[in-house]
Amino acid sequence: MYSLLQHIDAPDDLRKLSLTDLPKVSDELRDYIITEVKEKEGHIKSSLGVVELTIALHYSLNTPHDVLIWDVGHQAYGHKILTGRRKDFPTNRVKGGISGFPRPAESIYDAFAVGHSSTSISAIMGAAIADKAQGNTNKHVAVIGDGALTGGMAFEALNNLGTSDLDVLIILNENGYSIDQNIGALKNKGALKAYFQSLNLNYHGIEDGHNSVELANTIKKLVNQSGPKVLHIRTERGKGYPEKQKSTALASPPRYQDVFGHTLLELAKDNNKIVGITPAMITGSSLDVMQKEMPSRIFDTGITEQHAVTLSAGMASKGLVPYCTIYSTFLQRAYDQIVHDVALQNLPVVFCIDRAGLVGADGATHHGVFDIAFLRSVPNIIIASPINEIAFRNLLYTAQFTNSPIAIRYPRGNGVLTDWQTPFDQLEIGKGVTINEGKKVAVLSIGPVGNRVIEATEVLQKEGINIGHYDMQFAKPIDEALLKDILNKYDSIITIEDGVITGGFGSAVLEFMSENGYQNKLKRLGVPDQFIEHGTRDELFELVGIDTPGIIKTVKALY
Amino acid sequence: MYSLLQHIDAPDDLRKLSLTDLPKVSDELRDYIITEVKEKEGHIKSSLGVVELTIALHYSLNTPHDVLIWDVGHQAYGHKILTGRRKDFPTNRVKGGISGFPRPAESIYDAFAVGHSSTSISAIMGAAIADKAQGNTNKHVAVIGDGALTGGMAFEALNNLGTSDLDVLIILNENGYSIDQNIGALKNKGALKAYFQSLNLNYHGIEDGHNSVELANTIKKLVNQSGPKVLHIRTERGKGYPEKQKSTALASPPRYQDVFGHTLLELAKDNNKIVGITPAMITGSSLDVMQKEMPSRIFDTGITEQHAVTLSAGMASKGLVPYCTIYSTFLQRAYDQIVHDVALQNLPVVFCIDRAGLVGADGATHHGVFDIAFLRSVPNIIIASPINEIAFRNLLYTAQFTNSPIAIRYPRGNGVLTDWQTPFDQLEIGKGVTINEGKKVAVLSIGPVGNRVIEATEVLQKEGINIGHYDMQFAKPIDEALLKDILNKYDSIITIEDGVITGGFGSAVLEFMSENGYQNKLKRLGVPDQFIEHGTRDELFELVGIDTPGIIKTVKALY
Repeated sequence: MYSLLQHIDAPDDLRKLSLTDLPKVSDELRDYIITEVKEKEGHIKSSLGVVELTIALHYSLNTPHDVLIWDVGHQAYGHKILTGRRKDFPTNRVKGGISGFPRPAESIYDAFAVGHSSTSISAIMGAAIADKAQGNTNKHVAVIGDGALTGGMAFEALNNLGTSDLDVLIILNENGYSIDQNIGALKNKGALKAYFQSLNLNYHGIEDGHNSVELANTIKKLVNQSGPKVLHIRTERGKGYPEKQKSTALASPPRYQDVFGHTLLELAKDNNKIVGITPAMITGSSLDVMQKEMPSRIFDTGITEQHAVTLSAGMASKGLVPYCTIYSTFLQRAYDQIVHDVALQNLPVVFCIDRAGLVGADGATHHGVFDIAFLRSVPNIIIASPINEIAFRNLLYTAQFTNSPIAIRYPRGNGVLTDWQTPFDQLEIGKGVTINEGKKVAVLSIGPVGNRVIEATEVLQKEGINIGHYDMQFAKPIDEALLKDILNKYDSIITIEDGVITGGFGSAVLEFMSENGYQNKLKRLGVPDQFIEHGTRDELFELVGIDTPGIIKTVKALY
Repeated sequence: MYSLLQHIDAPDDLRKLSLTDLPKVSDELRDYIITEVKEKEGHIKSSLGVVELTIALHYSLNTPHDVLIWDVGHQAYGHKILTGRRKDFPTNRVKGGISGFPRPAESIYDAFAVGHSSTSISAIMGAAIADKAQGNTNKHVAVIGDGALTGGMAFEALNNLGTSDLDVLIILNENGYSIDQNIGALKNKGALKAYFQSLNLNYHGIEDGHNSVELANTIKKLVNQSGPKVLHIRTERGKGYPEKQKSTALASPPRYQDVFGHTLLELAKDNNKIVGITPAMITGSSLDVMQKEMPSRIFDTGITEQHAVTLSAGMASKGLVPYCTIYSTFLQRAYDQIVHDVALQNLPVVFCIDRAGLVGADGATHHGVFDIAFLRSVPNIIIASPINEIAFRNLLYTAQFTNSPIAIRYPRGNGVLTDWQTPFDQLEIGKGVTINEGKKVAVLSIGPVGNRVIEATEVLQKEGINIGHYDMQFAKPIDEALLKDILNKYDSIITIEDGVITGGFGSAVLEFMSENGYQNKLKRLGVPDQFIEHGTRDELFELVGIDTPGIIKTVKALY
């Protein structure tokens, strides 16, 4: 079936083919990707759009000697298949299998780890400077989409590149998308060309980005020209992908993101100060629910976490109630803006941190495990995480009444309740909840991982072991009165969080104990001090010991 | 002497004057600033460049009803003087006096807290959206320099603004500087105009940015036009400022930044893989020392912390040894790049973190107090801080041999040694130093604050109190063997750091104790969980209790 592709075990095999074979290789590669990928629509579409480009690049360049960096990296399925991973491709995004993103530890053809947007131009410049300094004459190419171009660091690099003499080729793949439709002035007709030229970059364009022969010829020519240059191509995202009818029905239990989307709309109907802000994650955050009914109160700013946060701060400074929705891993991009533009002025921005904790198949670049640790040291900010959908709704409801910034973190995936659309309760900030009174050992959880503690508690009770379980709900301010009661009553404490334990929620408990002279034994469960690869969420929870059996084991060791 | 200025206690007083009076007000305002400001050359120059603009803005706008945001904010001295703070201006940057930056808590004319670069366009957009949503018809103006325009978040906002219908006026003040001379393709002739137009922004230019009358007329006209627009003016930074001859002699003891600059040059002479990278802080970081001798090995990337870090990662991926030099407060901008582009790939980038800790007069926006806390939860990274210049040199020397990222934090200001240019020693990573063996109480310090512990130890010894003192040198990995010895020997431990105690170095010690079953009493000294205002470094050390008397007091309470 794959008469050409089946013989390509490395780009050298591709290069042995004649130029006129490339269209057939493209067809086979596209078919192979569609056949082997069963899920993760967004990522397959990006990869399908660049099938011809991928083939043209490896055909014209001498990879891995020449350096090729894919921005974001989610479009690199074709690249992986052509660079020795065709047979491994069915293990894509599976625990122990290959990663969904380029990963230098996996292949010498993956020049740089990518997963977050807009990094490729900086990285390729660094590689080009290094090679030049060491007398190497290899080529340097980065591929970036028009969505990734909205990210500020791409501009920073282009402005720098425009005054350099580096022989770097930037390929701009325009498909009109980030994840949703792309936004911003650069999507206007002719704007990209004018933009690159204003930055002193030599501009070339190809209308049909699916013509592998023209692409190969043009790339070959351009990489041999000196100085920085841009090749602008247009492609169709998801080319060849059979459109699927998406279900709009809510799952039961619902996904946390859907609880967010529907609840925000409910809140916005009652409070006309509420607005929703997202850096390019309208559907990923389920803000489309509110956008359909109130388009003027939803702001998609592009892949611009920094701008989105400071825009929210500006809104809050003049009386709006912004719900700024960002995935945990991407919120890392806006750390300074949280500190400097929001917390320092104590502006009541509501941070809705989706995909917090281990995210599963997207792996190391996308786990949202640092947020509690990096937010906790910032003054003025409230940090909360709900144990279930009802608590989540109540936190979202309560957030509009705070006079401080508040961060509400919630995970990828589904909740635990079927009947969740109950009336709102205003919660007391910094108040924990007693789930179970027990003895000897108390588990203090934050967030939905608390449901695994509930399971563990039930299992243990059947064995005659009755532990305490407290859903602290807030990492900051922490419920000091409840903590004192717990510390006075139990010998040993276990803290559990879906996040890093270095500086995380467990450390907040430790700090409280130290300041108040408590000497209880304490064990912190969570993500250890290492990067965690991909797998299902359940597999990764087991890996780090925050699954139900892991909790039971830790309890028994202390009981 | 200030016949007009002395009657201006608010912008309303300015607006009572006739347009033809503005040049005289400008002369008086410029003279007043020069007379009253005795230090901080960089900041006074920025303010002097915009004297006429400041007057024109308050004359044409109805501040504070109209919203005016100054990017970076260090050019706001004239703004402060015209908005009711003329008499307080001599207290500028003094503890208890007014801040060197706009600060909403200080004045209703300070619409937004600024101190870091490139935030103003996002903030003014947010304010404009909020006012529009609430039916207000007031005006919205942001002033940004061409240096600040190199920061990516300014681009993010402009690209977003270019598709909005907000009646926002952006004034671009081109003076060719960030702090040093500005860099990047946008400094080319005609580039800025082409850049704004590519982003669909209505462009207007004024050649002479010191013509207050023309500025006032133009601003009045433009703010009444609908839609977003840019007014590009050219000014002379430091206009009217008598140039001072700068001393190039090294102080004794030297400033830490100079130890860095001279040492890096020494290292670079012996290792041709070493390069220096800075986001717009060539002289502030003393990278000018190496730049003079090896210009091709120093990279000033503009105000681009994100790009600078990923550029360094790209360099490291291909074998160079990048020393990426960023002030602690600005490194917050590159948190995601540190996690995702450096640490995840375990690339040996050397982060030279200048201005770490409390910085003094620059105040809350500039204290570099979060770095240990936000870096400590990132896997793979080594975090060190030297107690003095010799330790600093040895750390810088050692850093080139690590196979992991390493962050070396050092403070603003001078060291403690006069004889510091000693031969290099390679240090063992993660190894602390015993300064004094004592009993009962041990103080564990990191960084130059350890010198205050040395002083305290000496004072205490005279009173017959002999405490232990250990310079841990590394916050990560922490010296576990030494820690065990200390914890076994002393009853009480005091940790001290020039940084936040929430999640900081002291928490690393706590986490180690918890994991290893130690129950010693522990007191963490450092910056508490609040934003600290301006003052001298000594005043602020006293404020948070990490000065010598503060340490003595804490010891005595535990001894």
